[in-house]
Amino acid sequence: MRQFLVLAHDAPTEPDFSLDGLPGAGRLDVLCRCVTSALLLSHDIREDSRVWLVLGDSCSVRFEGSDIRRLNPDERSTAALIRGALEEHEEAIGHMDAESSPGVFVSRRGVEEVLEEMKEQTSAENTVVTLHEEGTPITDLDPPTDPIFVLSDHRDFIEHEADLLAEEGDERVRLGSERLHANHAITVAHNYLDTAGFERY
Amino acid sequence: MRQFLVLAHDAPTEPDFSLDGLPGAGRLDVLCRCVTSALLLSHDIREDSRVWLVLGDSCSVRFEGSDIRRLNPDERSTAALIRGALEEHEEAIGHMDAESSPGVFVSRRGVEEVLEEMKEQTSAENTVVTLHEEGTPITDLDPPTDPIFVLSDHRDFIEHEADLLAEEGDERVRLGSERLHANHAITVAHNYLDTAGFERY
Repeated sequence: MRQFLVLAHDAPTEPDFSLDGLPGAGRLDVLCRCVTSALLLSHDIREDSRVWLVLGDSCSVRFEGSDIRRLNPDERSTAALIRGALEEHEEAIGHMDAESSPGVFVSRRGVEEVLEEMKEQTSAENTVVTLHEEGTPITDLDPPTDPIFVLSDHRDFIEHEADLLAEEGDERVRLGSERLHANHAITVAHNYLDTAGFERY
Repeated sequence: MRQFLVLAHDAPTEPDFSLDGLPGAGRLDVLCRCVTSALLLSHDIREDSRVWLVLGDSCSVRFEGSDIRRLNPDERSTAALIRGALEEHEEAIGHMDAESSPGVFVSRRGVEEVLEEMKEQTSAENTVVTLHEEGTPITDLDPPTDPIFVLSDHRDFIEHEADLLAEEGDERVRLGSERLHANHAITVAHNYLDTAGFERY
């Protein structure tokens, strides 16, 4: 199981945004591309993958590769799924999941609770891998079995998140020589695992 | 110089499409993500990269990393740049480039002329690399100096294109064990070159 946790910093937690202006809606476009990068292959779905978005202090949306339906590659339709989750969130109670669309779940969880839940949902051998430009090269990392990749949207981690990850994270890695957008980082992380064991030049 | 050539099969060649329905406009969403994957880093631009889109038989749009302005990471604003290029295309004469926006050029060129132009624009050591799921693993490829990556949108290459690439292509590679969307393939290709020389597990 590959899991991705994307921490948003400006994204809306209310569904009153326009699908015509995703960058203006707290850079929701980035989050949409993160979801599709995490779950979609060409004409297929990565069923063994899961992505969580944490929007604000206590609003989390989970996309489950094994259950997802109606996820298309474009930003706008993915944003509509997030908007549907935020509509459901207004009714959500505590940490209980509400399924707003097949394979899309929303709950009142913040980053600590989500990370805890992600660790519980996999084997004890899971590895929390923080993606950060100042980390060690991923090529130095023996590909982990049940990785939990944690990354930030267009902003850096805030202090509270950095402290949590310093405490709970197992590895802090960068994916290459360049600073990548969050969604591109997810694509590269997947490919790194897809090609684990391949020799290369 | 890294160059990418994306061959579209259903995309519009007229500017009369809506920015609200990019998937319905011949999957223009895929092409937009290809452009941003090819040229954008986090808060930066890959100035040594260039991407060409071939839309239909004789309509080509070129995005130049070294000159590009107003390219944002979201699909909608990139689609607006393509729409602007198609408006300019109506006025274009022959193979002459028309600059529809800083760093965005449109011309009446088909795939053969574009590939020829791409080869002329780099050193004689350029390598035409066709990305295809049935190619040999990219990990077997010594990272080329001036690669020209050729890939298809959501459809496979048509016969005419496959014949051209069989003739003109130097390598035919796949990027891993999974079939990737075209834009994800571009991200992986960049990372492969970014990390050339890194040892890995």
